[in-house]
Amino acid sequence: MRTELAAAEALALILGETAPLAPESVDVRAAQGRVLAEAVVATRRIPPADNSAMDGYAVRRADLAAASRERPVALRVAFEIAAGAAPQQSLHAGEAARIFTGAAIPPGADAVVRQEDVEREGESVRIPLEPRPRENVRDAGEDIEPGQLVLEPGTAIGPAHAGMLAALGRSVVAVHQRPRVALLSSGDELVEPDGDVAGGRIVSSNSYTLAAQCREVGADPVYLGIARDTPEALEERFRAGLRADVVVSSAGVSVGDHDHVRGVLAKLGCELRFWGVRIKPGFPLAFGRLGQSGALVFGLPGNPVSAMVTFEEFVRPALRRMAGHRSLFRPLVRARLAERLAKKPGRLHFVRVVLEHQGGEIVAKSAGNQSSGALLPMLRGHGLLVFPAEASELAAGEVASVQVLDPAFLDAPQPGF
Amino acid sequence: MRTELAAAEALALILGETAPLAPESVDVRAAQGRVLAEAVVATRRIPPADNSAMDGYAVRRADLAAASRERPVALRVAFEIAAGAAPQQSLHAGEAARIFTGAAIPPGADAVVRQEDVEREGESVRIPLEPRPRENVRDAGEDIEPGQLVLEPGTAIGPAHAGMLAALGRSVVAVHQRPRVALLSSGDELVEPDGDVAGGRIVSSNSYTLAAQCREVGADPVYLGIARDTPEALEERFRAGLRADVVVSSAGVSVGDHDHVRGVLAKLGCELRFWGVRIKPGFPLAFGRLGQSGALVFGLPGNPVSAMVTFEEFVRPALRRMAGHRSLFRPLVRARLAERLAKKPGRLHFVRVVLEHQGGEIVAKSAGNQSSGALLPMLRGHGLLVFPAEASELAAGEVASVQVLDPAFLDAPQPGF
Repeated sequence: MRTELAAAEALALILGETAPLAPESVDVRAAQGRVLAEAVVATRRIPPADNSAMDGYAVRRADLAAASRERPVALRVAFEIAAGAAPQQSLHAGEAARIFTGAAIPPGADAVVRQEDVEREGESVRIPLEPRPRENVRDAGEDIEPGQLVLEPGTAIGPAHAGMLAALGRSVVAVHQRPRVALLSSGDELVEPDGDVAGGRIVSSNSYTLAAQCREVGADPVYLGIARDTPEALEERFRAGLRADVVVSSAGVSVGDHDHVRGVLAKLGCELRFWGVRIKPGFPLAFGRLGQSGALVFGLPGNPVSAMVTFEEFVRPALRRMAGHRSLFRPLVRARLAERLAKKPGRLHFVRVVLEHQGGEIVAKSAGNQSSGALLPMLRGHGLLVFPAEASELAAGEVASVQVLDPAFLDAPQPGF
Repeated sequence: MRTELAAAEALALILGETAPLAPESVDVRAAQGRVLAEAVVATRRIPPADNSAMDGYAVRRADLAAASRERPVALRVAFEIAAGAAPQQSLHAGEAARIFTGAAIPPGADAVVRQEDVEREGESVRIPLEPRPRENVRDAGEDIEPGQLVLEPGTAIGPAHAGMLAALGRSVVAVHQRPRVALLSSGDELVEPDGDVAGGRIVSSNSYTLAAQCREVGADPVYLGIARDTPEALEERFRAGLRADVVVSSAGVSVGDHDHVRGVLAKLGCELRFWGVRIKPGFPLAFGRLGQSGALVFGLPGNPVSAMVTFEEFVRPALRRMAGHRSLFRPLVRARLAERLAKKPGRLHFVRVVLEHQGGEIVAKSAGNQSSGALLPMLRGHGLLVFPAEASELAAGEVASVQVLDPAFLDAPQPGF
């Protein structure tokens, strides 16, 4: 087992143990946010036939070669084609066909004239122009041809993809399975939110935070509850998590006399790959794999901010990869520091910062108390500023990278028009 | 009823008719992504008591005034305090107490020395330093004091907020209701995805796209199915949507002989506020309000891209406001055009573009066929470039605003460390 890894080493080691989960076939309506595990190849043409882009009249251009505003040409309206009806007739010389948007172009026609450009008079229509070849005609297969690769494996399914799959006649599609994440907290001081907090007990809020972090990334949390600080209680809970793809425990992994997690993991055949990452918050992070089930095991520190940050930095990318995503990391922005930051060199700090747009650039300042027990700055901040391990100072005015955790920070105040 | 509005006028008119929905009380675990409709004020202190930030020994600094590496001071380990247990004893002169992270500091102690800094020998511990006042002690209420306003109304609930609500003992919280959106398609050419597409019929893919767009924004879609192109069929479907907060129909709103939507809406007491917005795709957009139920009504054009873009530009901001969000719009980036774009002045174009990071800036090029029937460029593109109404040309190398629809485009390729 390695120890005191750099953050990048720890992440590389975790991602090296992580692969997209096997596929499952789901209804297209339930596939939103999932990642395709198959190549989607079209078996039909879209649009299915040459069709009209406008409400108007299908015509033969040859009939209109002499048409002008001064000398419109009158054509007989021979028939009408509604959308969804295959044309029963061909268009002959001197004829026009009433046509609606999306309706199939009849044989013989080679353009559509918009209804606002013509004058209808009873059974005939006066047309004051010669349309361009195939004007207002959408070609069959313009969007999709049969045999065409439409969606590649690894594509995240959004609204347009759902519509496309439906248009292709697909109601079921293969996607990567959602990671199932067993969550457990340990500590005799922990109670559920409706529990009694007298005598220094605290709510096991990590299970709420971590479950929400799982859901945000499309994983499926299974909350195993609070384990008491005994090897027997911990073992029982860990065994309940063996069916999961990932087991995440918070607390119980440091070196205190009451930290039994590592002993229990060893008993369950968990080979710890590392313990301890040179970061703050979150140093006592442990990572391994259960020999029996192959589940990944993350032992997160118990402090609320440490647990949340280590999930964000190390568990989230692993879960995104398991779900099949290619993009694993949060948006990064470059932000100018409004104030000096200092620390001892040796550990990389994730500094909770508030971001603000100021005159075309982004300015960052501390979101407050950087104690790993203080959750408030975590939720008031917009992101985590990466204060590199070997640095001891970032001067006011310097520019640093910030991981943006609050997606609303990137939203625009106006729509751009 | 107004017509031929500019995009910004149409949006302002819609948002002027839109307000956050009434609150409902939901379980904190189900509140993710919802928006607070109450102010959350703390009724307890977090942390609840002065407690240890480390595993180590609680001490009285006065005992250690003379301590040094050369001359460590030995203290008797008088008792032990586990996390979650209220201290039963006070610490007296010459004594230390074994303490674990999160455990309450006993009366009499004024600092904690980390276990890695001391030497334990049976019943005593040798301490080679004088700690700073309250070193490794977390103050009661350091994060939260009773009476403190912790979360303001209008806050979107993310993982840290869920953890904080749990820590405050809240299991139920008031959030704005989710907008309920009735979706209906109309057109005799439409079939469901498993339907027969012979004879020029096409799949009603809009219901899939629009339902996914609803879900993406946290709204609750109710799909009313495909209405045939008769006033009676349309009226029946619209009546089924009267219980929704928003009714969205696609197709049936232009000026063709078969476009009955406006007549049916008038019969149902829907006052149309406008019809026709100077945009492409999506000109024949209609917006109104049902007199009876007060539901907002959007009549979207039927082409897949027109329907998706008008939802994105006009329905999505309204739904976000109804759900209580303050940020209504997509991220906007400035992108340099890789190629010339041209159009007739008069309508604002939303151009489907592919974006790419190139040497510190973002480059945009057309995602392909800009026909409003071509869905493929919509799903291959990363966003919509805003080509202003009065402009007729954007030269290659010019910079324009792009609404980013694919959130993965903003994700970083690396974590920033």
